[in-house]
Amino acid sequence: MSKSMPADRLYMDDLHVGQRFTSASYTIDEAQIKAFGGQFDPQPFHTDTEAAEGTFFKGLAASGWHTAAITMRLNVEGGLPLAGGIIGAGGEIGWPNPTRPGDTLHVESEILEIIPSRSKPDRGIAVIQSHTINQRGDVVQMLKAKLVVLRKNTN
Amino acid sequence: MSKSMPADRLYMDDLHVGQRFTSASYTIDEAQIKAFGGQFDPQPFHTDTEAAEGTFFKGLAASGWHTAAITMRLNVEGGLPLAGGIIGAGGEIGWPNPTRPGDTLHVESEILEIIPSRSKPDRGIAVIQSHTINQRGDVVQMLKAKLVVLRKNTN
Repeated sequence: MSKSMPADRLYMDDLHVGQRFTSASYTIDEAQIKAFGGQFDPQPFHTDTEAAEGTFFKGLAASGWHTAAITMRLNVEGGLPLAGGIIGAGGEIGWPNPTRPGDTLHVESEILEIIPSRSKPDRGIAVIQSHTINQRGDVVQMLKAKLVVLRKNTN
Repeated sequence: MSKSMPADRLYMDDLHVGQRFTSASYTIDEAQIKAFGGQFDPQPFHTDTEAAEGTFFKGLAASGWHTAAITMRLNVEGGLPLAGGIIGAGGEIGWPNPTRPGDTLHVESEILEIIPSRSKPDRGIAVIQSHTINQRGDVVQMLKAKLVVLRKNTN
């Protein structure tokens, strides 16, 4: 698995609690919000600019799962450079503010915990918090994920 | 907000702890897995059938966020008939098994808790567990979500 990974990607041994990472940024537009909404979350506040005005969101907003997917892309593309890739077992997610058309998002991540596997000596779990933040500094997603991390030099 | 909702959708007053719902089903194929992976989770185990064989997943698997997005669609399209729509504040998510090409998924949901808002008398939060299950009965996603629910007969 590791042979196809870039040399500068991080193994469990390279990680420490408190370590921080920042992703590149990504701008989302209205067409993308409506396309994702139409495919996966067909509710007026994600698909119809005018109808969205009269809803809970008071305007078009991205599906939370769209924000989650963009966060994943930003982390996969260098925001979280883990050897073996980003493999999540699960976690906690929250959306304290909506993502709006034209928002530019980036992700700031921090290692909260590193837990070696008891049964599999070649890996462990890292608990990593990723905040997805817009151009105004508002947090649009908080994710505390349990990710699989690999150890170096295993057979 | 409620005037645009179908009459058979449920308000907070219609919900009770232990109430269960079952969605329709949806079959995912390899092309969809690769398209979502390419757009939002570009890692070999989600985008490349052959390369996926040598990875953690031992074969092509859908991004967990793709499973989450399909779960949302199944719940929006009748799996969870809430008045005002499905608006999530956040929750806990886990993927105990991968979603594979050809899997047919459905969602089974249960109301765990109903919490009236202290500050806003027209709404509350329902904690709802949604298990996404494949055709073999394996749970591919567990989601415990906090959803906004509306009360009837508010001004």
